[in-house]
Amino acid sequence: MKAELIAVGTEILTGQITNTNAQFLSEKLAELGIDVYFHTAVGDNENRLLSVLDQSSKRSDLVILCGGLGPTEDDLTKQTLAKFLGKELIFDEEASKKLDSFFATRPKHTRTPNNERQAQIVEGAVPLQNLTGLAVGGIITVEGVTYVVLPGPPSELKPMVNQELIPALTENHTTLYSRVLRFFGVGESQLVTIIKDLIVNQTDPTIAPYAKVGEVTLRLSTKASSQEEADRKLDVLEEQIRSTKTLDGKSLSDLIYGYGESNSLAYEVFYLLKKYGKTITAAESLTAGLFQASVADFPGASQVFKGGFVTYSMEEKAKMLDIPLSKLEEHGVVSHFTAEKMAEGARVKTDSDYGIALTGVAGPDALEGHQAGTVFIGIADRNQVRSIKVVIGGRSRSDVRYISTLYAFNLVRQALLQEDNSI
Amino acid sequence: MKAELIAVGTEILTGQITNTNAQFLSEKLAELGIDVYFHTAVGDNENRLLSVLDQSSKRSDLVILCGGLGPTEDDLTKQTLAKFLGKELIFDEEASKKLDSFFATRPKHTRTPNNERQAQIVEGAVPLQNLTGLAVGGIITVEGVTYVVLPGPPSELKPMVNQELIPALTENHTTLYSRVLRFFGVGESQLVTIIKDLIVNQTDPTIAPYAKVGEVTLRLSTKASSQEEADRKLDVLEEQIRSTKTLDGKSLSDLIYGYGESNSLAYEVFYLLKKYGKTITAAESLTAGLFQASVADFPGASQVFKGGFVTYSMEEKAKMLDIPLSKLEEHGVVSHFTAEKMAEGARVKTDSDYGIALTGVAGPDALEGHQAGTVFIGIADRNQVRSIKVVIGGRSRSDVRYISTLYAFNLVRQALLQEDNSI
Repeated sequence: MKAELIAVGTEILTGQITNTNAQFLSEKLAELGIDVYFHTAVGDNENRLLSVLDQSSKRSDLVILCGGLGPTEDDLTKQTLAKFLGKELIFDEEASKKLDSFFATRPKHTRTPNNERQAQIVEGAVPLQNLTGLAVGGIITVEGVTYVVLPGPPSELKPMVNQELIPALTENHTTLYSRVLRFFGVGESQLVTIIKDLIVNQTDPTIAPYAKVGEVTLRLSTKASSQEEADRKLDVLEEQIRSTKTLDGKSLSDLIYGYGESNSLAYEVFYLLKKYGKTITAAESLTAGLFQASVADFPGASQVFKGGFVTYSMEEKAKMLDIPLSKLEEHGVVSHFTAEKMAEGARVKTDSDYGIALTGVAGPDALEGHQAGTVFIGIADRNQVRSIKVVIGGRSRSDVRYISTLYAFNLVRQALLQEDNSI
Repeated sequence: MKAELIAVGTEILTGQITNTNAQFLSEKLAELGIDVYFHTAVGDNENRLLSVLDQSSKRSDLVILCGGLGPTEDDLTKQTLAKFLGKELIFDEEASKKLDSFFATRPKHTRTPNNERQAQIVEGAVPLQNLTGLAVGGIITVEGVTYVVLPGPPSELKPMVNQELIPALTENHTTLYSRVLRFFGVGESQLVTIIKDLIVNQTDPTIAPYAKVGEVTLRLSTKASSQEEADRKLDVLEEQIRSTKTLDGKSLSDLIYGYGESNSLAYEVFYLLKKYGKTITAAESLTAGLFQASVADFPGASQVFKGGFVTYSMEEKAKMLDIPLSKLEEHGVVSHFTAEKMAEGARVKTDSDYGIALTGVAGPDALEGHQAGTVFIGIADRNQVRSIKVVIGGRSRSDVRYISTLYAFNLVRQALLQEDNSI
C-alpha cells in the first residue's frame, strides 16, 4: 500500500507553524507497515488542493488529509474533497449531537452558521469521531483509493488517529518491526563505510543510518507477523554489524552504547547509576551546567545526583574546589591537571561516587594556545582519577559544549560497565 | 514569484524527523515577499524525486530542495537534479579545498570516496558555500525556473540561507522589511485577542503572530523602497501595539522584552549585564544548570559570569550556600524563603552583582504539596533580595524547567533596566 499525506493550511506555507502531524502520521503508518511516499502541504485554496488531490489519486492508494476542518471561512478540506469525488456533504448524526450539546451551554450568538460544517462528512464516508474537538473526520474509498480526512490540531488528530483510524486500517496488514542501534565515537560517513558491504547487500532486514549531533543511529527494519519472528531476523543482522571490525581493529560493538529511537547517552548513564546505586557530580567550566542539567532531565534524578559546581572562571575553580590558584595558573585551565583536580574536588565535596569535570575551549577563540574544540574531561571515582583530551573540530561553540557532555557521559558509562564486570 | 519547497530524505517519510526546514524557509521567504504555495517531502528515491521535480518545474518559479547532499549512498539530490536538467556535476573549487583542509587533520582512512560528492555542484550553478558543514549548495536557473539546493541539517541550512541564499534572491525584488517584537508573559491566543482589532484591520504593515515555548513574537512586515520608509510605517504600528492595554490595565509595552528574530531573554540579559558592567551567578535546583548554561551561550560570557551552584538536594543547598538545614526543612525547598536564601547565598559566595535562584517542582510528581510547575525564583542584588512564585501549568517537565529560566532572565532584565532608570 502506497500512502501519502496532505496537510492543508496556509499557516504552514507562511512558516507560522511546523507540520508536526506529518511526522506523527508517518511514524504511526510505519508501525503498521504502510509506506509513506510523499508529504505535501498546501494552502487553504480550493484550486491548489484539487490539483494536489488529483495527483495523489493517481500515485497513491491511501491519501490522508489533515487540517481545514474548522468553522472559519478558510476551512475547505471536506468541501473540496467532496467536489473532487463528485459527492455531496451530509451531516453525521453523532457529530451533530456533539455540536448541539457543546453550544447548549454557551451564548446563542457564538454558534455561527459555519460551525455546522464541522459535523459534515462526505456522503458515503465512515465517520471518525473527534474525541477532543468538534470537527468529525472521515474515511472513504473511491475507485481503489482510500481518502482519510483528519482535523489539523495535533490534540485532536492524535486521539482520532490512535483510537479511530488505526483500528480501521489494521485489519489486513503485516507489521514493520524496527530496532535502532545507537553509536558514539564514529561519524555517519565513517560508519557507513565500515559496514558498506552490509548496506550494499541489504535485503531483509533493511539498514538506514541517521546522523545526530555527535552520534549516529542505525535503524534495522523488517516485516514480520510477530515480534519473535522479527527478533530472529534482526538478531542476525545486529550480530553481523557488531562483529564488523573498524580500521583500528576494534569491533563496532564497542561503539554501540544502546538501543532505541528516543534513547541517549545521558539516559543510559542515568539508568546504570540507578542500577548500581551510584551517585554523580560535576564541576563544569565551558559547559557551564549543561552536563548536570542533562543528568536532571530524568524523573528520579535525585536518586543519583545531589548537586555540583559551575566553575567558569579560574578563581571559582580555585575557591569552590580547593585547588591552589598558583597550580591552576601553572598548568593552565585547559589541561589534564585541572580536569583531574576539578573532578576529584567536586567528587569529594559532594561525597559522590563519580565526579566529572569539563574544561576546555568552546570557541570561537583559542585559549591558552589551544584551538577551539579542545576539551579535557576528568573522571574521578572513589579509587582514582584520570582524564582524556578530545578535539572537537570544525563545530560551533554550542556543538562543542554539547558534544563534550556526550564524551563525559560515555566515560561514566564505560566506568559503570566495568563496575558490572568486576562484580 | 511562486515558490515551493522540496525536502528530500526517507527519514522524513518514516517519521524519524520532523521537517522543520520547511517552516524556517517559508518564514524567510515570506520576509522577502515570496509566496510559498507547496511543501513536498519525498524519500531518497531517484524516480520519485524526478516526478516531484517535473511537477514543480511546471507550477513554480522558484524550487528549493533541501537534504540529500551528504556522503552516503542515500544522498542523491544533486545527481537527480543534474539528471533532470540534463547537466553534469562538476567540482566547486572552494568546497573541494574545504574538504581537503577538514581531512588534513584527521586520520587518512576517515576520508571515504563518497565524501567527494559533497563538493560537487550542477554545472552552471552558482555555489552557495556551506559555513558549518562540507556539502556545498547551489542555485541555477533553467528555462525560467530557479532551482536551489541546500543541505538538510538545519545547522548547515540556516547559515547558508541567511548568508548566501537571501542575498542572492533579494537583488531584484522590492524589499519586505520586517520588525519582530518579542513578548514574554502572555500566550499567543491571549495576545491575538488583545490586539484583535489591529489584526483584523491590518493592511500595511501586516502582523503575524508566532508562538514559541514560553514566549510569543509578532512579525510586522511592510514593503518599502528604503529602510527609512519602512521604519516610518513600522513605528506607527509598533506604537499602536505598545499602547494597547491588557485586561488588567497594563500596556502591552511592559510585555515586550526585545526585538529581532533570533533574540532571546538570555541574550538581552547578557547584553545588559555587559553594558552596565555587572556580574551574575545562580543557585539552581530544578533547572540543575540550565540557567547558567544559557548565560554561557554567548562568547564573552566570562565578563559577566564567574560560576555558580547546582544545589539539587536539600543537603547541598545547606552545605554549598550556608543555609541552616533546619530552616530549609521548616520552610520547605519550594518556598520564598529558600529561593531568597539560595539567591543571596550564591551572590555572596561568588561576590556577584546579581544572584538568581530557581527552586520548585519540575514534575511530573508534586512535591511538598505543591503541584508540578510550581517554581519560586529568587533574585538578590547588593541591596536586597526578593522572590516570585510562578505556576507553569500543563507543561512537560522539560518545558517547566526551560520556562523557569525565562522567568528568571526576565527578573534580571527588569532589575537591570531599573538600574538604567536610576542612573
